Amino acid sequence: MKTVIGVIGASEASSDERETALEVGRQIAGKGAVLLCGGAGGVMEAACMGAHSKGGLTVGIIPGASKSDANRYVDIPVVTGMGHGRNIIVASSCDAVIAIGGGFGTLSEIAFALRLKIPVVGIRTWDVSSEIKKATGPDEAVDMAVELARARSDGGLR
Amino acid sequence: MKTVIGVIGASEASSDERETALEVGRQIAGKGAVLLCGGAGGVMEAACMGAHSKGGLTVGIIPGASKSDANRYVDIPVVTGMGHGRNIIVASSCDAVIAIGGGFGTLSEIAFALRLKIPVVGIRTWDVSSEIKKATGPDEAVDMAVELARARSDGGLR
Amino acid sequence: MKTVIGVIGASEASSDERETALEVGRQIAGKGAVLLCGGAGGVMEAACMGAHSKGGLTVGIIPGASKSDANRYVDIPVVTGMGHGRNIIVASSCDAVIAIGGGFGTLSEIAFALRLKIPVVGIRTWDVSSEIKKATGPDEAVDMAVELARARSDGGLR
Amino acid sequence: MKTVIGVIGASEASSDERETALEVGRQIAGKGAVLLCGGAGGVMEAACMGAHSKGGLTVGIIPGASKSDANRYVDIPVVTGMGHGRNIIVASSCDAVIAIGGGFGTLSEIAFALRLKIPVVGIRTWDVSSEIKKATGPDEAVDMAVELARARSDGGLR
Repeated sequence: MKTVIGVIGASEASSDERETALEVGRQIAGKGAVLLCGGAGGVMEAACMGAHSKGGLTVGIIPGASKSDANRYVDIPVVTGMGHGRNIIVASSCDAVIAIGGGFGTLSEIAFALRLKIPVVGIRTWDVSSEIKKATGPDEAVDMAVELARARSDGGLR
Repeated sequence: MKTVIGVIGASEASSDERETALEVGRQIAGKGAVLLCGGAGGVMEAACMGAHSKGGLTVGIIPGASKSDANRYVDIPVVTGMGHGRNIIVASSCDAVIAIGGGFGTLSEIAFALRLKIPVVGIRTWDVSSEIKKATGPDEAVDMAVELARARSDGGLR
Repeated sequence: MKTVIGVIGASEASSDERETALEVGRQIAGKGAVLLCGGAGGVMEAACMGAHSKGGLTVGIIPGASKSDANRYVDIPVVTGMGHGRNIIVASSCDAVIAIGGGFGTLSEIAFALRLKIPVVGIRTWDVSSEIKKATGPDEAVDMAVELARARSDGGLR
Repeated sequence: MKTVIGVIGASEASSDERETALEVGRQIAGKGAVLLCGGAGGVMEAACMGAHSKGGLTVGIIPGASKSDANRYVDIPVVTGMGHGRNIIVASSCDAVIAIGGGFGTLSEIAFALRLKIPVVGIRTWDVSSEIKKATGPDEAVDMAVELARARSDGGLR
C-alpha cells in the first residue's frame, strides 16, 4: 500500500496559496508519496502540477460526474458525482492531510479528518482545534505530514 | 413542500444539550415544521423526542445501513449507509439548521450548510463564521430558524 | 416508525407507466403508508401526484443539489447532490419497493434492493430474479408491497 | 490521465472466476493500464493480485471506512465508507469495465455503467443488455476493454 498525502484548499485560491500548493506537491512527489486531492482547480490544481513536475502520481476525488471535470494534472480521477459530498472521501483516503488556506469546503474536510483521527497539518488555515499541526511552509508541512502518516501506518491505525 | 428545520449536534451530548434539543424539537413541531436530523442519539434523539411529544413529524438521515439504527423517535428513517458522509445530506435537506453544541461531525455539517448558503442558527456551538446567527435558547433559535427558512423559500432560494 | 413504500421507474416514462404509477401512488396513500421515490419526473412524479390526491405523504430522495429539483408533489425532499448515486438510498430506505417499467437506473435500484433483501414487487419491469414478485396492476402491487413490508417489519428485519 | 480498466465481480467467487480475474488483472497490467475495482475479496482480490504480479498499479474503491478493509493487493485504497453505495463510483471512474460473473452488487455496477455509457465487457455475467460485449476469456476481454476505453477517450467522451 502506498503512502497517500492529501492536499486540501480552495478551488479559487490566492497566488500565494497556489505557490505554496505547488511546492507542497513537488515535495510530496519527492518523498515518493501519492498526492490525493479533490481534483478541482486552485490549490488542488497547483498541488497536482507540482507533483507532476517531479514525476509524482496524483489522484483526484472529483465532485463532477465526468473525468473531464478533473484538472489536467490528475493522473487517476475518481469520479464521484457527489459534489461537495466527496469531501469525506478525500479526508478518509489520506494517511495525512495538508490544509492550505481554504473556505467552508476545506473546513468540512478538516472536520472530517479530525473526526476520523487522520492527522492534519495546516498552513495558514482554519484554527478550529489544537490537533491541527501548524507548519510555516511547504517543506515543514510535507515533512510533518509524511512523518505523521508513517507513524499512523506503523501503528496499524489505518 | 413542507418547511424542514434541521437539528444538529453530538450523539454523545451533555444533559444540558439534550434538554435544549428536547425543547427545540417541541418548538419545531409547534410551528408545524418537519424536524430533520442525523437520526442517531444524543442531541438528535432528544430533538426527535421533543417533536414527537407535540405530534410533529421527524426525519432521520441515518449513517447506518439499517432502519433499526435510527433512534426510536424517528418517523421516517432515510437509510444512507454512508456513515459521516451523510452529514452533507442532513445540511442540504434543511431550509435552516439549528446547531446545539457539537463536535467535529457537527462542525462538518455547519461547514456544509455555510458552503451551501443554508441559514445556521447556533446555540453554544462552533464559532467559525459571523454568518452563524447566535441564539440564547430554544425559543429564540426556533423563531429565528423558521423565519430564515421562510425568507429563503419566499426568495426562491431553495 | 411509519411504513414506507418505494416507487421506482424511469423519469421519462410512457403514458401507460405514468397512469400505473398514479394509481399506485393513490393506493399507497390509501393504505396510510409513506411514498418514497427518487423525486424526479415520469413514474416518480406520477406516483407522488397520486399519493397527494389522496392526502398521502411523499418523500423524494433527489439527485440534484437543490430542493427546486424535486417534482412539485414531493412534500419532503431529501437533497443528496449525488446524482444516480442516490439510488441506493432510495432502495435502502423502503420497507418494500414497487418497480414500474424502468431503464438502467431502475435496474440499479432493483439490484440494490435484492442485494439488501428488501422486497421488490414488479409491474412489467426487469426480470432479473425470481425474487421479484410479479404484479399485474396497481391494486395487486400495493397489496403485495404493504403485506411484504409489514411481514418484514414484524420479523424485525428492518 | 491514465487509462483505467475496472474489474467487477463477487467478493465470494468460484475458483473459476478467481482464476479468470487473476489473468484479467495480469493482462491489464501488461497493457500499462491502471486496474480499478471495489477493493474487496473474491474477483476483486484475484484481479489485483494478477496486476501486482506484473508490476501494475491497483486502485480499490472500498466500501468500508478504513484502509485496512482493502485487500492486500490494493496500492491506493479510496476509502468511501459508503458500503454498496460505492458501486457507482467504481463504474463512473473507469474507461471500460470487465464484469466476471457476479451477484446483485455486480448487477448494480453493470446497470450504472450502462446508464453512464461506460463500455462493459462481460465474461459469463448478467445478460441484461445487448450493449454488454461478450468475451470468451481474459485475453479477449482485456483487448476489447482497452480498445473501447481508448476509443472513448479519443472521442473526448470521458
